[in-house]
Amino acid sequence: MYAWPVILRDPVHHLISFTGAEERLVVDLMDTPEVQRLRRIRALGLASLAFPGGEHSRFAHAVGSAYVMRRYLEHVGGLSSQLAAHDRIAPETGLVALAAALLHDLGHGPYSHTFEDVVPQARSHEAWTEALICDPSTSVHRVLVGVDATMPGEVAALVRGRHPIAHLARAVSGTFDVDRCDYLMRDSYMTGVRYGLLDLDWLLASLRLHCATEGAPATLAVDGEKGLTAVEGYFLARLYMYRQVYLHKAVRAADAVMRSLFRRLHRIGAPAGTPTALADAAAGRELSPQRYLELDDHLLEVALATWSNGSDPVAGDLAERLRSRRLFKTMSLRPDVDVALAEAQLSEIVRREGLDPDYYARIDRVEIHACEDDDESLVVLHGGARRERLVDASPVLRGLRRERFVHCRALFPECVRSAVRRGLAEFV
Amino acid sequence: MYAWPVILRDPVHHLISFTGAEERLVVDLMDTPEVQRLRRIRALGLASLAFPGGEHSRFAHAVGSAYVMRRYLEHVGGLSSQLAAHDRIAPETGLVALAAALLHDLGHGPYSHTFEDVVPQARSHEAWTEALICDPSTSVHRVLVGVDATMPGEVAALVRGRHPIAHLARAVSGTFDVDRCDYLMRDSYMTGVRYGLLDLDWLLASLRLHCATEGAPATLAVDGEKGLTAVEGYFLARLYMYRQVYLHKAVRAADAVMRSLFRRLHRIGAPAGTPTALADAAAGRELSPQRYLELDDHLLEVALATWSNGSDPVAGDLAERLRSRRLFKTMSLRPDVDVALAEAQLSEIVRREGLDPDYYARIDRVEIHACEDDDESLVVLHGGARRERLVDASPVLRGLRRERFVHCRALFPECVRSAVRRGLAEFV
Amino acid sequence: MYAWPVILRDPVHHLISFTGAEERLVVDLMDTPEVQRLRRIRALGLASLAFPGGEHSRFAHAVGSAYVMRRYLEHVGGLSSQLAAHDRIAPETGLVALAAALLHDLGHGPYSHTFEDVVPQARSHEAWTEALICDPSTSVHRVLVGVDATMPGEVAALVRGRHPIAHLARAVSGTFDVDRCDYLMRDSYMTGVRYGLLDLDWLLASLRLHCATEGAPATLAVDGEKGLTAVEGYFLARLYMYRQVYLHKAVRAADAVMRSLFRRLHRIGAPAGTPTALADAAAGRELSPQRYLELDDHLLEVALATWSNGSDPVAGDLAERLRSRRLFKTMSLRPDVDVALAEAQLSEIVRREGLDPDYYARIDRVEIHACEDDDESLVVLHGGARRERLVDASPVLRGLRRERFVHCRALFPECVRSAVRRGLAEFV
Amino acid sequence: MYAWPVILRDPVHHLISFTGAEERLVVDLMDTPEVQRLRRIRALGLASLAFPGGEHSRFAHAVGSAYVMRRYLEHVGGLSSQLAAHDRIAPETGLVALAAALLHDLGHGPYSHTFEDVVPQARSHEAWTEALICDPSTSVHRVLVGVDATMPGEVAALVRGRHPIAHLARAVSGTFDVDRCDYLMRDSYMTGVRYGLLDLDWLLASLRLHCATEGAPATLAVDGEKGLTAVEGYFLARLYMYRQVYLHKAVRAADAVMRSLFRRLHRIGAPAGTPTALADAAAGRELSPQRYLELDDHLLEVALATWSNGSDPVAGDLAERLRSRRLFKTMSLRPDVDVALAEAQLSEIVRREGLDPDYYARIDRVEIHACEDDDESLVVLHGGARRERLVDASPVLRGLRRERFVHCRALFPECVRSAVRRGLAEFV
Repeated sequence: MYAWPVILRDPVHHLISFTGAEERLVVDLMDTPEVQRLRRIRALGLASLAFPGGEHSRFAHAVGSAYVMRRYLEHVGGLSSQLAAHDRIAPETGLVALAAALLHDLGHGPYSHTFEDVVPQARSHEAWTEALICDPSTSVHRVLVGVDATMPGEVAALVRGRHPIAHLARAVSGTFDVDRCDYLMRDSYMTGVRYGLLDLDWLLASLRLHCATEGAPATLAVDGEKGLTAVEGYFLARLYMYRQVYLHKAVRAADAVMRSLFRRLHRIGAPAGTPTALADAAAGRELSPQRYLELDDHLLEVALATWSNGSDPVAGDLAERLRSRRLFKTMSLRPDVDVALAEAQLSEIVRREGLDPDYYARIDRVEIHACEDDDESLVVLHGGARRERLVDASPVLRGLRRERFVHCRALFPECVRSAVRRGLAEFV
Repeated sequence: MYAWPVILRDPVHHLISFTGAEERLVVDLMDTPEVQRLRRIRALGLASLAFPGGEHSRFAHAVGSAYVMRRYLEHVGGLSSQLAAHDRIAPETGLVALAAALLHDLGHGPYSHTFEDVVPQARSHEAWTEALICDPSTSVHRVLVGVDATMPGEVAALVRGRHPIAHLARAVSGTFDVDRCDYLMRDSYMTGVRYGLLDLDWLLASLRLHCATEGAPATLAVDGEKGLTAVEGYFLARLYMYRQVYLHKAVRAADAVMRSLFRRLHRIGAPAGTPTALADAAAGRELSPQRYLELDDHLLEVALATWSNGSDPVAGDLAERLRSRRLFKTMSLRPDVDVALAEAQLSEIVRREGLDPDYYARIDRVEIHACEDDDESLVVLHGGARRERLVDASPVLRGLRRERFVHCRALFPECVRSAVRRGLAEFV
Repeated sequence: MYAWPVILRDPVHHLISFTGAEERLVVDLMDTPEVQRLRRIRALGLASLAFPGGEHSRFAHAVGSAYVMRRYLEHVGGLSSQLAAHDRIAPETGLVALAAALLHDLGHGPYSHTFEDVVPQARSHEAWTEALICDPSTSVHRVLVGVDATMPGEVAALVRGRHPIAHLARAVSGTFDVDRCDYLMRDSYMTGVRYGLLDLDWLLASLRLHCATEGAPATLAVDGEKGLTAVEGYFLARLYMYRQVYLHKAVRAADAVMRSLFRRLHRIGAPAGTPTALADAAAGRELSPQRYLELDDHLLEVALATWSNGSDPVAGDLAERLRSRRLFKTMSLRPDVDVALAEAQLSEIVRREGLDPDYYARIDRVEIHACEDDDESLVVLHGGARRERLVDASPVLRGLRRERFVHCRALFPECVRSAVRRGLAEFV
Repeated sequence: MYAWPVILRDPVHHLISFTGAEERLVVDLMDTPEVQRLRRIRALGLASLAFPGGEHSRFAHAVGSAYVMRRYLEHVGGLSSQLAAHDRIAPETGLVALAAALLHDLGHGPYSHTFEDVVPQARSHEAWTEALICDPSTSVHRVLVGVDATMPGEVAALVRGRHPIAHLARAVSGTFDVDRCDYLMRDSYMTGVRYGLLDLDWLLASLRLHCATEGAPATLAVDGEKGLTAVEGYFLARLYMYRQVYLHKAVRAADAVMRSLFRRLHRIGAPAGTPTALADAAAGRELSPQRYLELDDHLLEVALATWSNGSDPVAGDLAERLRSRRLFKTMSLRPDVDVALAEAQLSEIVRREGLDPDYYARIDRVEIHACEDDDESLVVLHGGARRERLVDASPVLRGLRRERFVHCRALFPECVRSAVRRGLAEFV
């Protein structure tokens, strides 16, 4: 158990302390089994197969997110003389914000995003987070209710990006939300891919709150003189981490193997020896919160070992591939390829080699953008009253938002590599 | 599968490449299931409970150690004109050295050192490493034999610190061995405890090989002008990482809980549902290599979940403590305390509170030294022929080696804290 | 004097060693008075007024450039089996390359670029570098001739980007030249503006040499799989360092004050007590190499002190402004402003306030681009024979190269600030 | 001019902001010519000859010290509920503290410590700092008086370590004073000698204030659980920076050359063309504050150029040695050597070679200790009321404080090297 006051070493933020009286709640939440469970879930999921350093857990990230939230609250506190009453953050609201930051990932399943992506009909992790916070049987719920009966509801709403104070809602779910600030920095530090190294101090120092019209809710803005490059740096970090890490070919290949495995299990039913929680999940059956909480990386990994020794050759092969890192091979295709056509052709090749294309052939096309919808509302404040949309003020963003970043790849087992290379030559 | 040539991002060494033709062996070994299994074993064992960032695996460390070995080989290659023939490293020997560096931790069990420490009659991880390398059924063995039939034997010997070239033997097991160079840097980077940040470049640049007498085997020495502080820095890093991380009170407390749990399992037998490999290990039965390889963090973690719901209240409580991080509390005692007396008194207190002191009371006394036996042989080369023992040449080491660093702590559950505080007051 | 072999601490590259026999020349050159003079010239010129950390000298940068060149030579050496004979770098050519890297900035005057910019009719620093290398009276010349009589000519040519081996010429003067690699990293490290932190290891590992047609000279190319983001990172670092540091408003303001000062001195003649070398330079008179070498930051700074106490009020005021950091104020104007019109208006305002606009009014418009002409020739090598222009292959560069980055600012003394603010309101 | 509020990039502390209303004074002081003069004085003096990166100025250090003071004030503010009224820091006192931190080095002469060391009868820089703060003609004085008439006196007293609040006095001049915290970090960062990298956050978080007896003034103490290693790290950083940087052989050799030069000038009188301020200083004449402020690195460097071309061969040679980095050679002697005897012998050798030993022969013996007197008073607070002297509580300090670190070296020109090597062989 952590006991308040807590000072933690953190490699990313260096020293994280929850020593203020108002931070007792954070420490109490850190001690719950539901938050401790996040130690058993790797933040980067299967990406650790491509980046040996990227083996950190959701727990470290959750604590880091709470720390970034505290710094956001301090920064906004310093601006409060310029804010209308309805935009200031009262101490009770600060508690809700810290709790939301710490708990925002509570509902993640094994290997983080992987799980909800590959399991048929899986509830999203956001939905699970909300469910766990609101379920009276969880320790998290009890700790929150101990502060105030309305707290679970408020925290759950804020985690989903809903709060009367608009800028706070966006600090949990928006362009610069505390989640992203922490994960970009942490994933970058841990993988050694340096592009995600945000200048958090400078970014925070550049944030302003701004009312488009008198009385309107304040929204996030950026100081035009100091902040433009810090903000551009943030967008670039985000873009690069996606291109370099989150969408790395080995990561996509591992995801595809996992996806095939679960598709197979869905069809054949979970083999004997599969833990109930996993069997239910694989079958697309509803899970109770307690059952869901049993799911973690360890349970899945042990199941992989079981399945790899099981009687179904397809499930066995796919499970063993994940354990021994014999992922699918990838071949880059042109971005403008007709995916359906390429997939048909790849399937045919794989079938001719005696494999079932349902599990062993996939065209993986992902498209990312430097700017997202939510980014469009950001405003840059120049001296005086002049303001401008960020995407207009920044030549870097102006240039990048017109571009699409497309990765289109064929994924297949190594044994068909030369057949694929010949057969898909026209798509390269 | 990795395919040669390999270039990896590594957060500690930045960029690790195995691109030389002679490094194909390293890549082939990285692809074996035995080496891939190291991904499933946390390098710092239970220390991640105290340092949220310290969740990296033995795999990342193994690759890092091979990298440091390559740099050692390059450095020694640059000195070879000054070496007698019997001290030079031929290309085949370089292969053995790289393989030994990569494989030196192959035999680790769940949570690295924890496992061999807590399981009754467990074989050491070094013995398991040797066994796995030499066992014809392992892929590692097959890959090594593919190069040369004598290789498994040579690699296994070198891992244990035995080799005709004395300085190479010590580069695998000695003061500055490649294992330690990597783990001090990596553990420091990952935990954020900065004291372990070696100056590896400078350290390597300062290393010399030195023959005490004409024809004697060369041993490791240090350039007196440039190297003294780099070497002192190494000793200090080692000392600090032990004090700050490896012997951190929460780490010792977690170890004690795990130890109690396995003592309990040994007495009552492993509960139903325990995987065979773990049940055999817990019972002190011999395991085959294939069975041993089934053991990893995941298997142990899932077993903890099973045991925490099992029928034995002691095993259940101890397992749940590890899952939910309700470790034993610690109280620092004076270094010169009579351990037997303190333990008797602590046991009595714990018994009065209704708990079995076999599992819930422990006096943990560890003593470390700034210098180890192996360090004593290091020599500093001053200009010309003058040389001196390192421990004489360095005032820092001279001062530190007379000191003992003792941690003496009582470990007990939180529910008896106030009783212990009163009852052991005389030992504080 | 440095004595070979040399190992230096360098904060940017960590440890710079010139220990190979072939690097004796570098050490001998480092010991010449002409190279030692670079210690007396700040690399960032007046930018240290805006970035207190940016006070490093051209000497540290020159040594760093030689180090980057050595790494380039090592990298190209590793590729040489794929190169035609005429593209391989022979040992003698390697010496020329190292010397050119170390000496490329030999001709800089006080405050680096500032001097050649502000002094009327000043020779460029490149022309001075060539002159100093080729002048038989310099120690640098003597050291080079000591190796080979043709060396000064070859080194001077290479510094100007002329060499029979095309890729080597561009490594001294081209997109990724060693000069830039070092200064982007060094200026970033020293100022604390983190955007310039190149991933030098990864960048080098990604460089390829490529022949457009059989027998054509090899030119620089980039590995498409690994290298695209490293190269984009380089372009972004370059862009950001310009925007954030080199064209920072306080840097431009300081430059403008210095420019005004030299314009004034040109008109009134250098005051009594001005050292001959400076007086000649200020008057636009030709200087001998020995006289030119007398010029350094110290001479200029002491002259500023003299001038600030001199009888001409304009020169005195401008000199004192530089000493006490009372630079011109800046006001950002719209990028598309009619510069002549704005300048006329600013001059009128300044004149009305009783100041001479020749010295106290300036519209400063600078325009930079993410890509330069030289960048256009870079090629990305995809697997097999496919290749593509970098600016086509990279969506980031595709997006950025259409954009112009314009800074347009009015510069004026603080005493006219409110008048300017009113008078130029239409241009904002 | 800086204009409040100020946010600066700093490579060491990352982002330094003086944005609070109470920090206007810091900004006003930064704008004075006396503080701006510190830009013209290198913090490490001649050490930049040994460490090319170490070229930063006293200005960057002064600003960094003010920043560390602000963090100290914040930390003490957080402890104030535990402090007696007489130990709390009122806002006005905070201003005095910030000013003292910024101004503590105001009186440094050219090349920082070098100048006061080598110039005969020079006033210490501390005495000059006090004089400049208290002299009504300085801008610094005027700015301070503008806040309160008593301020110059209070600031000057605090700079000398005198203040009614004992712990504040020691924060300016004591074991962990803000000056040292900044310079150890900065010098380490800039030279690339990593040993000085303090863990400032952790150190500050570990500091406590402690009253030995009820009502006694609080003194600095350290939290026993968290702080011991942070404090040891500080002592080690200090020790290493002295051994590696401040007492580096090339630094001592450069100092000796400068010292010989000024001894010569004192005997022969300053050559024609020497600026008055330097001539007066060299002759040991009293200087007015305004004259003293004329002295800076630039003035001295230009004088070196003048002297190196002057008529006195000894002064000319010594000056040219400094310009071209032809420093004295060093030979390490045994620590226990009879210095007088060695010096006599060295002088005789040098004289036989036709050089004047007054200028060309020197035995340089320096002795440092891991702990200083002031450190002895530090107390470690264990849980509850138990406390212990730091030097007893820490085995590291216990071991180190018994050791002396002695550097004993002969310094002489390179032309007598072989004669010295033979002649002093017995002392090695």
